[in-house]
Amino acid sequence: MASADRAGADRGAFMAGPLTVRDAALACDLYEIAMAMSYWREGMRGDATFSCFVRRLPPSRGFLVAAGLEDLLDNLARFAFTPPGLRYLASLGRFDPAFLDWLGSLRFTGSVRAVPEGTPVFANEPLLEVTAPIVEAQLVESLVLNRLHYPTLVATKAARCVDAARGRPVIEFGLRRAPGLDAALQAARSAYLGGAASTSHVLAGAWLGVPVTGTMAHSYVSAFPSEAESFAAFARAFPDGCYLLVDTYDTLEGVRRAVVAAQVLAAAGHRLSGVRLDSGDLQELSRGARTILDAAGLTSVRIMASGGLDEFEIERLLREGAPIDGFGVGTKLDTSDDAPLLDMAYKLVRCDGRDVMKLSGGKETWPGPKQVWRERAEDGTAARDTLALADEASAPGQPLLRTVMRHGARCRSAPPLSELREQALGMRRALPAAVRDPRAPAPFPVIVSQALAARRDEVRAAIR
Amino acid sequence: MASADRAGADRGAFMAGPLTVRDAALACDLYEIAMAMSYWREGMRGDATFSCFVRRLPPSRGFLVAAGLEDLLDNLARFAFTPPGLRYLASLGRFDPAFLDWLGSLRFTGSVRAVPEGTPVFANEPLLEVTAPIVEAQLVESLVLNRLHYPTLVATKAARCVDAARGRPVIEFGLRRAPGLDAALQAARSAYLGGAASTSHVLAGAWLGVPVTGTMAHSYVSAFPSEAESFAAFARAFPDGCYLLVDTYDTLEGVRRAVVAAQVLAAAGHRLSGVRLDSGDLQELSRGARTILDAAGLTSVRIMASGGLDEFEIERLLREGAPIDGFGVGTKLDTSDDAPLLDMAYKLVRCDGRDVMKLSGGKETWPGPKQVWRERAEDGTAARDTLALADEASAPGQPLLRTVMRHGARCRSAPPLSELREQALGMRRALPAAVRDPRAPAPFPVIVSQALAARRDEVRAAIR
Repeated sequence: MASADRAGADRGAFMAGPLTVRDAALACDLYEIAMAMSYWREGMRGDATFSCFVRRLPPSRGFLVAAGLEDLLDNLARFAFTPPGLRYLASLGRFDPAFLDWLGSLRFTGSVRAVPEGTPVFANEPLLEVTAPIVEAQLVESLVLNRLHYPTLVATKAARCVDAARGRPVIEFGLRRAPGLDAALQAARSAYLGGAASTSHVLAGAWLGVPVTGTMAHSYVSAFPSEAESFAAFARAFPDGCYLLVDTYDTLEGVRRAVVAAQVLAAAGHRLSGVRLDSGDLQELSRGARTILDAAGLTSVRIMASGGLDEFEIERLLREGAPIDGFGVGTKLDTSDDAPLLDMAYKLVRCDGRDVMKLSGGKETWPGPKQVWRERAEDGTAARDTLALADEASAPGQPLLRTVMRHGARCRSAPPLSELREQALGMRRALPAAVRDPRAPAPFPVIVSQALAARRDEVRAAIR
Repeated sequence: MASADRAGADRGAFMAGPLTVRDAALACDLYEIAMAMSYWREGMRGDATFSCFVRRLPPSRGFLVAAGLEDLLDNLARFAFTPPGLRYLASLGRFDPAFLDWLGSLRFTGSVRAVPEGTPVFANEPLLEVTAPIVEAQLVESLVLNRLHYPTLVATKAARCVDAARGRPVIEFGLRRAPGLDAALQAARSAYLGGAASTSHVLAGAWLGVPVTGTMAHSYVSAFPSEAESFAAFARAFPDGCYLLVDTYDTLEGVRRAVVAAQVLAAAGHRLSGVRLDSGDLQELSRGARTILDAAGLTSVRIMASGGLDEFEIERLLREGAPIDGFGVGTKLDTSDDAPLLDMAYKLVRCDGRDVMKLSGGKETWPGPKQVWRERAEDGTAARDTLALADEASAPGQPLLRTVMRHGARCRSAPPLSELREQALGMRRALPAAVRDPRAPAPFPVIVSQALAARRDEVRAAIR
């Protein structure tokens, strides 16, 4: 596929962010507005801290790659109810008009502490904590979870695919079966953050600066009277960076026709970049394709594979020696099909100066604002995390959560995506290899500080 | 939860459609633009027909509920590349400037035939067919799939939950873990189309007219010095339609505190509507809660359950006699976690008057534009479908696909969502009960017409 590294060059003309959401403040659950009205009526204006974390990792996940923060911060900075939004709420006949007036001037004035996007995180470690007047912190509950859950899911899945590909490029192909257009954009961005090389999704290139690449579809081949004619036409249009899809009818026959197209290109001073296999036994077909290409002296023509791939299949293909040079991963990446959800929660941990927790069956939470400290071994490998109270003086290692928003304003503008991606790759490489095993990952040790354990016992004892 | 049937009353002030997507024409894969340029260069201006269908149903799915059509038609009617979008494409350095100029004036001028939203469909049956000049039909490939795949997935999952709940209301609660905001809106709408009673998502109420409902969160309870004080405050704010969440600390203790709140409400002439259970053994806790409520004379106070529910769990709870009156279904609905993807394809079936098919391993397609005819037994039950060529004079039963867009314009405005929902419920009730079994559904008989089978043999024989 042709690379398009200048993707995003003209980005100034576009939004730097997600889809335009009118009335994003209404992207909440009705109960959040109901609770806000009660807090307002009761005069509860104190600060609350909510902690966003994943209760447990899905089976086969040794780590998660935190993602979605920058987009969430954009949304929080723009948080406001509009007059049509307030008229809609009034139409429900359930809210005090004085409360709705008050809501009209409400902005998000809180602070946010978070781990940088791309940070590997484990169960119970906060990805983010919000401290704000309780009405504000409560109103953004669903927005916070919505903006972090799916990007974290996809960045994690992408990281696993990239690990499995062992240096070969992985390309995000999932627009068509991504759950909506917002998801498609988030998936392209999160996959890139997780180490993917590029996306096929043009809008993600235009808006988010993700490099875009692409080949051709079966329908293109079918649209010509013969496969050979379709290859010739595509090579005419794109003599450089040309990839040919060879499996519309008979795959190895298609490879032979690609050889002919390559010879025509070569005669005109161009070079066929590669072929793509999208169905059948990719192990056997990639070997057959490699043999045919090599026999024709086309040793530099690459073989790209796609079609229902994920980290498990990529790992298997390469372990068995398939001569595949790059992978298109679509549906199973954008739906994270083997683990389509995270048990991600946004829980009240402090209210008006008082640490709180819930005890609900199987869902007990740790009280108080927190910090995560990551210790490294001498060789730089991450060795252990400590989950501590945020106000503990220090713990061994480096703290992961940093203040990224204060009084409703970002502490810094969003770092370039490529920079976040590099940092993310570095942090992931620092994990022990056993924790990155895609099938049966070793657990990473996370301990709880003595002060946090003591606080939990105190708070539990005090619950009436 | 308080019902809010006036949801959508003020809808005129909002978009009736999805999120605003600037440059929706860029919501495509790069290869679609590459192929378009080749078609343009080769002077290929003939009409093509693409068929959108699901190759096979996921395990445990006896039928799919088609959804997403109306939103797709809105997108097709507005299809256009903008100047910034064209500048971005130019920045990639890969497209002929004359082609990009031509793209700037391109609109979708094709026709669309489709089954109405809410129609139960089976493997290989087209949900929709697009006939347009090949460049247009090819450019909208990923958009068509993106707009139909996720809504169909969620409408199907919702229909299964609604069937399992046997008349009790099912409420869509999934905003927080829906894959993005577009998905959250589509999920609320698709769940309603599939028979859900309401959503918790306020934006879906405001924009799409889905009824909204809601209760309270654990954080609300934790924010007060005691559970009893939190219940009293919520009842003060919402004396009518009040639901109390009782499982923050000890569930049955919470129910007893709800009884106290109900007595205070009753003394002031109001009535507690219900309690919600969100964790623990819902079977045992719902029985315990019912006993406590009934003993206090609160037989009309309803018990609502939520927390990791899906059709399988709802079916089990009711089969074992749990006295639950309504279900909140969130994460597992919005992620369709047991079947998070459909093998949905958009395939070229006719090009410039010539029927085509692909033969790729395991992905062979049926050639030619099609119609689906559904036969009913004397009692109205759907008995059999026939997959036929669109130009066959007729087949037994009623045709399912209708022309909904002609020359790029809708043939009619979008029907009200509530009307689509009623029709959908009717069509689903007409399916044989065995086909609707959630665990081991019987296959619904779909046969292929003789003419289609013969066409397939001809086309296959002619492939060079």
